[in-house]
Amino acid sequence: MKNEIFNEKIKGFIVNINGQLTSGDKAKISIFDRGLLFGDSIYEVTSTINRKILFFTEHLNRLFNSADLISLPLNFSNDEIVQESIKTLEKLNCDNAYIRIIITRGLSFPSIDPTQFIANNLIIICMPSLNEPTFWQEEGIKVIIGNTIRNHKRSIDPNAKSGNYLNNIMALSEAKRRGFSDTIMCNSDGVITEGTTNNIWLIKNGVYKTPSLDSGLLKGITREKILTILKKKNLPIQETKITPEELINSEECFISSSTRGIVPITQINDKIIGDGTAGKKTKLLFDYYQEFLLQEMDKTPYSF
Amino acid sequence: MKNEIFNEKIKGFIVNINGQLTSGDKAKISIFDRGLLFGDSIYEVTSTINRKILFFTEHLNRLFNSADLISLPLNFSNDEIVQESIKTLEKLNCDNAYIRIIITRGLSFPSIDPTQFIANNLIIICMPSLNEPTFWQEEGIKVIIGNTIRNHKRSIDPNAKSGNYLNNIMALSEAKRRGFSDTIMCNSDGVITEGTTNNIWLIKNGVYKTPSLDSGLLKGITREKILTILKKKNLPIQETKITPEELINSEECFISSSTRGIVPITQINDKIIGDGTAGKKTKLLFDYYQEFLLQEMDKTPYSF
Repeated sequence: MKNEIFNEKIKGFIVNINGQLTSGDKAKISIFDRGLLFGDSIYEVTSTINRKILFFTEHLNRLFNSADLISLPLNFSNDEIVQESIKTLEKLNCDNAYIRIIITRGLSFPSIDPTQFIANNLIIICMPSLNEPTFWQEEGIKVIIGNTIRNHKRSIDPNAKSGNYLNNIMALSEAKRRGFSDTIMCNSDGVITEGTTNNIWLIKNGVYKTPSLDSGLLKGITREKILTILKKKNLPIQETKITPEELINSEECFISSSTRGIVPITQINDKIIGDGTAGKKTKLLFDYYQEFLLQEMDKTPYSF
Repeated sequence: MKNEIFNEKIKGFIVNINGQLTSGDKAKISIFDRGLLFGDSIYEVTSTINRKILFFTEHLNRLFNSADLISLPLNFSNDEIVQESIKTLEKLNCDNAYIRIIITRGLSFPSIDPTQFIANNLIIICMPSLNEPTFWQEEGIKVIIGNTIRNHKRSIDPNAKSGNYLNNIMALSEAKRRGFSDTIMCNSDGVITEGTTNNIWLIKNGVYKTPSLDSGLLKGITREKILTILKKKNLPIQETKITPEELINSEECFISSSTRGIVPITQINDKIIGDGTAGKKTKLLFDYYQEFLLQEMDKTPYSF
């Protein structure tokens, strides 16, 4: 993408840096921010539907959990983050918006010592919602089980949504090189963990299976919501260790994420899943999820 | 540190962003830079002694190697980076300077897809050299063998000096919490790799041992130079897999890094190494290294 086109695109975004609103093209930060130097930051992404913020409580809880996991003391309260988010969304003035909240540890240089830093920087980016391709739901996506190993829980815990994303970028890069949409990563024991920005699911003999948290993965909010829906519908669930062979030999397979919802997988490596189109049980769950979203949106305390 | 003090400090730094020189307090970058969003960048740090750049060829070679390892196409040539570095150092006008070169993949948002980005950003930070505590050489430092596992080679290769530093930050954090100077990390197989910003060495029965590269660690430039010196002096070397037990039970122990040179270790966890002061063979190597540095500095083609 050309610089001018990108610049034009971000002009329409609203960015909040420590309470100051600006358009995207003017949103800058010190190069001494540890977010830039070391990826020393945490973040969350969610969206709004009809001016209501999707699962904001859950996203904020996870933001604070990520802070704990990387020992990042926060000088912004939950209420301040909510207020600043709503202020930014109001300025964008768009019913269906994308919102990304980033908190960096702050400025310091040159030591990596995390105890030496200037106060956190809070950055909130709002833009009109992405129009993710809707054909995905019908046609599904093709993924690989790649060579990239998901970060070890004791290296950088995948449960911390942080500014260290090279592991995921390397995995996605591997998929793109081979003409696939995404890479499903194994951990160092060879067990399935997650996609680069999503959780993974399979269906076999009517059972909905997803890797257990101890496999080393992000506790996805959509993952949690799907577990809730499946329980309500009395459908059998297994959170368990899953091998690549088991995933490849599933009857149906799909990914879940906050930004994309539920997307069927129709091919893993060379293997076609089912008949190569979105599975029936996946489609049914997709409908359940849409219904659940509408109900939940009505209950949200966060709107603007 | 207070914001004002930090701001005052960086005012004296010179920062070069894509060829434009500015003082540190004015050096800013777009929040859409992938360096900030994902830690999607590479870097090198070296220093100057009497206006000569220390091992610049080696640092630049490693910068290009890091780019390869994270599949980062560079739109700056070796010569351009050299020219911009010298331009920045000339402006700082300080005989003994610290120089950090950062190249980010560029701007993109919101996808992590590394194939979608605007041209790289080159950031060069120059400041007067750090006055690292010289008592380290005499008194040594105390380290722990921590709980943090070094990034797996197939997750984020430790040989790529990148903007993903949380693994090292978490390890250093562990040491600081326990009142130690640094953490030596094991890999997921329990084998010693490196410190958070340095390579690790032990001496036993007259043999100088350091973890082999296949243990998963950065091929440190000072590590390479020490190997050269030891070979020249006909001292026995082993690059091999080292267990925590072996490290703890060594006769002497030290770390090596570009910014700190050679620093003795006098304690690992609860165990005092040798008599608790800098080891004799370590001190001898330190002297050899200082002598070697002077010789090499005279040969460097990079001065300003």
